[in-house]
Amino acid sequence: MAKFKLDEVDHQILDMLIENTRTPFTDIAKKLLISAGTVHVRVKKMEEAGIIEGSSLTLDYKKLGYSFIAYVGIYLQNTSQTKFVLQRIKEIPFVTVAHITTGKFNIFCKVRAKDTNHAKDIIFQLDDIDGVYRTETMISLEESINDKKRLMHSIFQDL
Amino acid sequence: MAKFKLDEVDHQILDMLIENTRTPFTDIAKKLLISAGTVHVRVKKMEEAGIIEGSSLTLDYKKLGYSFIAYVGIYLQNTSQTKFVLQRIKEIPFVTVAHITTGKFNIFCKVRAKDTNHAKDIIFQLDDIDGVYRTETMISLEESINDKKRLMHSIFQDL
Amino acid sequence: MAKFKLDEVDHQILDMLIENTRTPFTDIAKKLLISAGTVHVRVKKMEEAGIIEGSSLTLDYKKLGYSFIAYVGIYLQNTSQTKFVLQRIKEIPFVTVAHITTGKFNIFCKVRAKDTNHAKDIIFQLDDIDGVYRTETMISLEESINDKKRLMHSIFQDL
Amino acid sequence: MAKFKLDEVDHQILDMLIENTRTPFTDIAKKLLISAGTVHVRVKKMEEAGIIEGSSLTLDYKKLGYSFIAYVGIYLQNTSQTKFVLQRIKEIPFVTVAHITTGKFNIFCKVRAKDTNHAKDIIFQLDDIDGVYRTETMISLEESINDKKRLMHSIFQDL
Amino acid sequence: MAKFKLDEVDHQILDMLIENTRTPFTDIAKKLLISAGTVHVRVKKMEEAGIIEGSSLTLDYKKLGYSFIAYVGIYLQNTSQTKFVLQRIKEIPFVTVAHITTGKFNIFCKVRAKDTNHAKDIIFQLDDIDGVYRTETMISLEESINDKKRLMHSIFQDL
Amino acid sequence: MAKFKLDEVDHQILDMLIENTRTPFTDIAKKLLISAGTVHVRVKKMEEAGIIEGSSLTLDYKKLGYSFIAYVGIYLQNTSQTKFVLQRIKEIPFVTVAHITTGKFNIFCKVRAKDTNHAKDIIFQLDDIDGVYRTETMISLEESINDKKRLMHSIFQDL
Amino acid sequence: MAKFKLDEVDHQILDMLIENTRTPFTDIAKKLLISAGTVHVRVKKMEEAGIIEGSSLTLDYKKLGYSFIAYVGIYLQNTSQTKFVLQRIKEIPFVTVAHITTGKFNIFCKVRAKDTNHAKDIIFQLDDIDGVYRTETMISLEESINDKKRLMHSIFQDL
Amino acid sequence: MAKFKLDEVDHQILDMLIENTRTPFTDIAKKLLISAGTVHVRVKKMEEAGIIEGSSLTLDYKKLGYSFIAYVGIYLQNTSQTKFVLQRIKEIPFVTVAHITTGKFNIFCKVRAKDTNHAKDIIFQLDDIDGVYRTETMISLEESINDKKRLMHSIFQDL
Repeated sequence: MAKFKLDEVDHQILDMLIENTRTPFTDIAKKLLISAGTVHVRVKKMEEAGIIEGSSLTLDYKKLGYSFIAYVGIYLQNTSQTKFVLQRIKEIPFVTVAHITTGKFNIFCKVRAKDTNHAKDIIFQLDDIDGVYRTETMISLEESINDKKRLMHSIFQDL
Repeated sequence: MAKFKLDEVDHQILDMLIENTRTPFTDIAKKLLISAGTVHVRVKKMEEAGIIEGSSLTLDYKKLGYSFIAYVGIYLQNTSQTKFVLQRIKEIPFVTVAHITTGKFNIFCKVRAKDTNHAKDIIFQLDDIDGVYRTETMISLEESINDKKRLMHSIFQDL
Repeated sequence: MAKFKLDEVDHQILDMLIENTRTPFTDIAKKLLISAGTVHVRVKKMEEAGIIEGSSLTLDYKKLGYSFIAYVGIYLQNTSQTKFVLQRIKEIPFVTVAHITTGKFNIFCKVRAKDTNHAKDIIFQLDDIDGVYRTETMISLEESINDKKRLMHSIFQDL
Repeated sequence: MAKFKLDEVDHQILDMLIENTRTPFTDIAKKLLISAGTVHVRVKKMEEAGIIEGSSLTLDYKKLGYSFIAYVGIYLQNTSQTKFVLQRIKEIPFVTVAHITTGKFNIFCKVRAKDTNHAKDIIFQLDDIDGVYRTETMISLEESINDKKRLMHSIFQDL
Repeated sequence: MAKFKLDEVDHQILDMLIENTRTPFTDIAKKLLISAGTVHVRVKKMEEAGIIEGSSLTLDYKKLGYSFIAYVGIYLQNTSQTKFVLQRIKEIPFVTVAHITTGKFNIFCKVRAKDTNHAKDIIFQLDDIDGVYRTETMISLEESINDKKRLMHSIFQDL
Repeated sequence: MAKFKLDEVDHQILDMLIENTRTPFTDIAKKLLISAGTVHVRVKKMEEAGIIEGSSLTLDYKKLGYSFIAYVGIYLQNTSQTKFVLQRIKEIPFVTVAHITTGKFNIFCKVRAKDTNHAKDIIFQLDDIDGVYRTETMISLEESINDKKRLMHSIFQDL
Repeated sequence: MAKFKLDEVDHQILDMLIENTRTPFTDIAKKLLISAGTVHVRVKKMEEAGIIEGSSLTLDYKKLGYSFIAYVGIYLQNTSQTKFVLQRIKEIPFVTVAHITTGKFNIFCKVRAKDTNHAKDIIFQLDDIDGVYRTETMISLEESINDKKRLMHSIFQDL
Repeated sequence: MAKFKLDEVDHQILDMLIENTRTPFTDIAKKLLISAGTVHVRVKKMEEAGIIEGSSLTLDYKKLGYSFIAYVGIYLQNTSQTKFVLQRIKEIPFVTVAHITTGKFNIFCKVRAKDTNHAKDIIFQLDDIDGVYRTETMISLEESINDKKRLMHSIFQDL
């Protein structure tokens, strides 16, 4: 697949938006000595190319009462059920991430719950999906890093 | 820790910003039949309370050339080294998530890389941190779900 | 869930009863310079609040011929059977503790038996419960600590 | 080791005390149609023989703010350190049970904590004991059975 | 079960027979300064008590073309099948030892075969027994110790 | 290595001695319609060729107070220590079998002990040998098969 | 099975062909001071004896777009299905090697794929074969050695 | 890295050479209706591009006395030693394949040996390399597939 070519200006625009997606385009324009229209056009192009998929708020889950994080590895009875099981997993909003993986698990999920009891309910929901053979859970004692900005800065320096 | 109390209006504001963090406050105001100033005040308060920590772009990693995802479990020689090792991990921008976990690993990381070869380099960097005893890697064949909006909507309905 | 508030006096009453549940209330009263009636009222209140669930003898299992302790991890065919299987486990008096757990086991039990042969019979009974897929046993060579008084004293100092 | 011989009367006394250690001896005496003095003598003899080691309150840990239970398996660097490590474990009041075990762990513990964060601190304390090589934690989602009365009744019927 | 009491003379008789089961009773008698009849009576009594179950030749398996040793762990579908599966295992003469075990296996066997290919056939025979769910094999690279005489001498010194 | 060629007569002699090593040569001779001298010569030749290494009593370990069997897997720090560690293991008479193995263990042993407590002592002795890194123990609940006669008959029919 | 006896001349012929299977027989003949006819006859004999099974090109898989290597361990539901499953595996050209193995897997395969996505498809194909119970994948980060010439030279020096 | 573009003719040439690397270029030319010179030029170009790295004989290892195949997983003390350890592994000709891998092993090898005893020696050599922490061995009972021609044909049809 052909990679979209970002130039230096795109890079600097993304770098500023990553720090704060609400940064007004006029501020970006002033800093980069270009017109706000150019910023607008560039962002639009990156959205159309699918590089920018959207934006999201970073909320403090603990303050919202969701301080319990678990990783759940899922064994399927048969991989032909993968698509179907993922569909069912998507209906559980507390599963925020799911991967098809190599190694001992077929699917590997990240779960956010209120507490031990809530986690139990979610794990039971996963266990009860047709085609799920067994699950294995690993509990997070502390989320020490959750930050994609370092990656993004590194990618932009790299391009 | 006392939970911050969000009312129905806060909830609706967050719900709209989660879909698009750049939604103008005037649009939100119009929809909720309140003044833009009120939206501004509410958002400010949620930022000050630490509920809103910031905002970030959702970029397409594949289009940026980063299509390889691995989960790396880290065994430490001794947990007294946990803090120090996490400090060193933070210097590797390709590690976007890191947890202190129960179970067989001491630290569990998510790594984004360009390809197999790049992943090897990152894993070797992790392996070479002082205090890291061994690592074990699980490779993602497909990131099927990575979406916290479902969780957020669920949280807001729940509050 | 709102925590019941124990004050200093409750704490001292519990501290004495923990050492010996048969301590006469008049002895406690004398020591704390309160009336025996007050002790009675406090204990009653703690019983009604469900803080004190009851009392039990600490017997020497070895002297009663039960020196064999095993931990048995149970894998279920499906977690929807958890409740049912626990019901069946409860009918085996030699299982003194059972937990629903994260990690590789669904249910984790503590078993007290007379000897290897008796342990085999109990493990076979567990294995033969409908819905139990497999069990894995870990044998205790020595019960070095079994004491909740240290915890209780620590909790009371903490409150 | 010669087993202490309990007769039918001892059995019935224990059976009543197990249900409630505070049952007055006069009540027991009335029910068994013997004198309160006999009850007293029998209990004393069983205490002297070490069969009755003491009595303890059954408290509701959840109501006391301790709802988090974990099992921690400990690997030692060398079994010659077992005694020393157990000594150090005893100083951590949140470890209520510890066994020397067969299988992959050298020592296996039960830990009661307030929450995930508290559990992390306790696990770190265990990890930092000299001679402890690694630990592995399994988290309880629900304590479904914790009851030795069923065992005791079974033992008494058996004797 | 009451242990049969062996006295010093029994001990010395066993000690000599263990080294060579064909030692003539007259030789034993001479050495112990007792009559051959006494030796005969003692041996007979130990046979009747079931202490001596028989005698067997120690042959060199390698010279007989059986140099391949494997340990095979067997998982059953259900432990209620244990007796039946053991019956079937007994029909395979190359399985010389089988135990019901704790831990991950239900049954654990020792197999002697001619070579890799022969071992494969035997493992397949075990795998194909009804009720056998899976097997796991560990191959011996060298039988370094196979000697119960050291144990026997130790037991006799101990009695 | 050239295999010693056993003929039909050797085979029949071994077959009878395997059932009872004390069978008088005259009885064997009578049955096979050969002279006792021939039996003697044949047995001698098989001893000299190293096919018959000796004979041993089959004793009932349970009746001798040794009813506890454990398999212990040993991990070495380095395989260059294998010879040395085996030497040390040989000094522990309760280890009746030891193999150098493939798979996760370096050395795999069979241990016979009196009871749980005795087993603990033996396992600790193994653990404390220089060069032993860790051990893992699997406990036998029942020795269901321990019989090499079936193998021997099969070998003789095969030759 | 009787081993074919290779003499010094066979050895030298193989040694030269191994370095380059297209080496003209006249070049080999010149070097070994024998006639080209002799080389021809020798090679023919080794082909007829089945020692030389054929010849193959060594291609650079990376340059052909196949840079992804995975090892896949397969668990069968029952080993009686081994033959059938291997037949089905043979129909997947991306599986270049397959072994029946001891240890936890029944069949162990080497897979060459274009990339992560292609690997996923192949693993899913393996998973979907009737009789395949589960698979476990290990990914190669670098093929550091793939060379049988060193072995061949060693074999020829050894013969 | 830019992929070398093979056209239909290259493809057909490779397809014939793969079946037999000694096929005369004149035969290939005749079949493809091109000149032998063209075949020569094409092959040369593919060699210069590094697509064709060489050719090798396919020999029957069993007939050469090498019927024992093992896969050995190697754990390193530290991945910084990877390069050095691989250098040392290369000096052992019986290791024909070695990969740096994800998952529990750092390096994964394929070993060809004469028999169990020879395999033991090779595994011990691997274990004794500086920096090698432990090894784990899986033994092949049958090499059912070892054939890259199916892959090659598939690749050529794909291009």
